[in-house]
Amino acid sequence: MKAISNDRSHGGIQGVYSHSSQACACEMTFAVFLPPQAATQPCPVLWYLSGLTCTHANVMDKGEYRRLASELGLIIVCPDTSPRGDKIPDEPENWQFGKGAGFYVDATQEPYAANYRMYSYITEELPKLIAENFAADMSRQSIFGHSMGGHGAITIALKHSDRFRSCSAFAPICHPSVSGWSRPAFEKYLGPDQASWRGYDACALIEDGKRFVDLLVDQGTSDSFLADGLRPNELAEACQAAWIPLTLRMQEGYGHSYFFISSFMDDHLRWHADRLK
Amino acid sequence: MKAISNDRSHGGIQGVYSHSSQACACEMTFAVFLPPQAATQPCPVLWYLSGLTCTHANVMDKGEYRRLASELGLIIVCPDTSPRGDKIPDEPENWQFGKGAGFYVDATQEPYAANYRMYSYITEELPKLIAENFAADMSRQSIFGHSMGGHGAITIALKHSDRFRSCSAFAPICHPSVSGWSRPAFEKYLGPDQASWRGYDACALIEDGKRFVDLLVDQGTSDSFLADGLRPNELAEACQAAWIPLTLRMQEGYGHSYFFISSFMDDHLRWHADRLK
Repeated sequence: MKAISNDRSHGGIQGVYSHSSQACACEMTFAVFLPPQAATQPCPVLWYLSGLTCTHANVMDKGEYRRLASELGLIIVCPDTSPRGDKIPDEPENWQFGKGAGFYVDATQEPYAANYRMYSYITEELPKLIAENFAADMSRQSIFGHSMGGHGAITIALKHSDRFRSCSAFAPICHPSVSGWSRPAFEKYLGPDQASWRGYDACALIEDGKRFVDLLVDQGTSDSFLADGLRPNELAEACQAAWIPLTLRMQEGYGHSYFFISSFMDDHLRWHADRLK
Repeated sequence: MKAISNDRSHGGIQGVYSHSSQACACEMTFAVFLPPQAATQPCPVLWYLSGLTCTHANVMDKGEYRRLASELGLIIVCPDTSPRGDKIPDEPENWQFGKGAGFYVDATQEPYAANYRMYSYITEELPKLIAENFAADMSRQSIFGHSMGGHGAITIALKHSDRFRSCSAFAPICHPSVSGWSRPAFEKYLGPDQASWRGYDACALIEDGKRFVDLLVDQGTSDSFLADGLRPNELAEACQAAWIPLTLRMQEGYGHSYFFISSFMDDHLRWHADRLK
């Protein structure tokens, strides 16, 4: 692991690191914020998964998480959203597929299967690296994310309900098997057999019996992706049928950008900190 | 004036606008954050002047001012740092001069005098536009900024002490007539006669009799520009000799970036809000 930068911020350290990833078979970059408490004791870890087109940097620059993470003593880990590099198969003109659009799945189809393994990267490889290199209390982990990363956070939490104490999302893609911007990606990464898609679809996972203690979702009412791309009502229906408590807050007039995310970042950090105590 | 975007954020509206500037003889872009209070009453105006290479967008994205500005009821105006456009004279390879480096002066030298008039733009043209188009209480204004914009804020406050109730800066260029990155710019904008530079130099303005009620400056100790470019000690000496109360806080381990600025944004907003009451 190499340190790319370390900047003091809000009393803690915002670091950016890179490492040679086995899961993705390429060099990967991620950001870790260490609160001041991490200088003297292990701190709980909150994973933030980003949305389409993003790298680790978008939430690091615009997410406004450091002030309260410092106060609450949370380590914030911000991975990239796909494998990277000149040799990675990609569709450069398509922002909904390829680089910046890994959808947190392990691809099974060629030519993507060798690199597009973001599920294994986020759930196996990167946690080991975090545990080895930072003052992280890995017995206390939570996860959240935005849009494609909200999809990632919820699906990963449902499949690792023993690992994560809490899960939340900003404008998550709730039903990717049916949304227009995720169906083509799922087909290319996972193949035409839609049975294999269900393991990466929050609504399908809940239908298939996965459970989580409770979920928090914030969704802007002026989000242009709401009706087709995001479908929070379908998540609400799945949760209701499965008796999963879902706090779904429709935020009047908010859009899909970091202007929205940063507005409710404090609420999400407190939600997680309460459950990580 | 054209609205480029309006996004709900932290209960207020983050807007970006453009207009045809007479002062700079080009189209100019700026950002205005309206707190929720501005929907029902005029609010005080806090000007933020940005540093070298920046546009209106850097502080808008990374400054973390909206949460507390909403709470305190402050309008935040974030102008650009220079004239813009293909026809503007520039040195594209030089980040310390030309576009992105207007230094808040009115250039007198060719070929810059027609466009590089950021002093008039910030002190005359843009205030009129703000007063006409937003719920701004122009009897309550304050000003702050970063680096080159800290220089701009302090020099403009010293010359308009009747207009601004308070002034603060993050890592300001305190003595631009002598710093390596501003001397060449001053010479190209203002000519070789250094007497004309003194009207745009905080230390010289104070020596020449300008006064301000009090100043707040935060400066990171790990800022690589500290010794030559910024020179806060020279501002401290000028203030001490002139009986201007200066709160100069050396912030241990902080650098020059928005990781530093955002860390102390709350303190600066409260400093201004206290004086704008």
